[in-house]
Amino acid sequence: MKVQKFAASDASFERSPGQTADVFAGNLVDQRHGGPVTVGYGRYGPNQSIDEEIAVDDIMIVLEGRVSVTSDGHTVSAGPGEIIYMPKGNVVTIKSHGEGALTAYVTYPHWQEPGDGGNADWSAAG
Amino acid sequence: MKVQKFAASDASFERSPGQTADVFAGNLVDQRHGGPVTVGYGRYGPNQSIDEEIAVDDIMIVLEGRVSVTSDGHTVSAGPGEIIYMPKGNVVTIKSHGEGALTAYVTYPHWQEPGDGGNADWSAAG
Repeated sequence: MKVQKFAASDASFERSPGQTADVFAGNLVDQRHGGPVTVGYGRYGPNQSIDEEIAVDDIMIVLEGRVSVTSDGHTVSAGPGEIIYMPKGNVVTIKSHGEGALTAYVTYPHWQEPGDGGNADWSAAG
Repeated sequence: MKVQKFAASDASFERSPGQTADVFAGNLVDQRHGGPVTVGYGRYGPNQSIDEEIAVDDIMIVLEGRVSVTSDGHTVSAGPGEIIYMPKGNVVTIKSHGEGALTAYVTYPHWQEPGDGGNADWSAAG
């Protein structure tokens, strides 16, 4: 693979799997491209909340707004330029606040299985 | 490992290995912590340039300023909120511009070997 550059506008956002909240993920590099990690952007509407068991190591960098993650009764909260690391195996509640949020994420390994589909229109990094 | 939150102010920056440029890296999660990825912040002085062979998959999220990466005669440039993915095996020149830059990075696997030392004073995530 070559060096590639991405912006949030390159992502095709889809609702986070198994969720009904306004939380969307847009992979830019994933299991379709032969590398070890998935890279993408996340978009959160205002005051959304999702519960997840973290299946793969997930690093979230907050770009806009604020995201709070509660796990084991402990809450961390991150704003622009801050990082939340969610190691595999944690059960978390991820919340956005009044302003919503934009995040970048990197997971190892991929959070989607090959063949899951994902964003069919993967044009940015092709 | 538990869920953890980091800010750039948590990082202990050290000069990028083998370089004399004003380019600094501060790991927050790495080979010392049992997970698969290294997470940290990078800080670039104005108009710096480093040449590197990318040994591990390296994802850089630009938080402030601008970073340009040239590889194979092709240059990409990223500003705040944009991502540059440098897959393993690429030979790159990474440049900052007049305003310098602050980045977050995730690598898989770790870019330092166990025992390399790194930032001895790893207090933020301990």
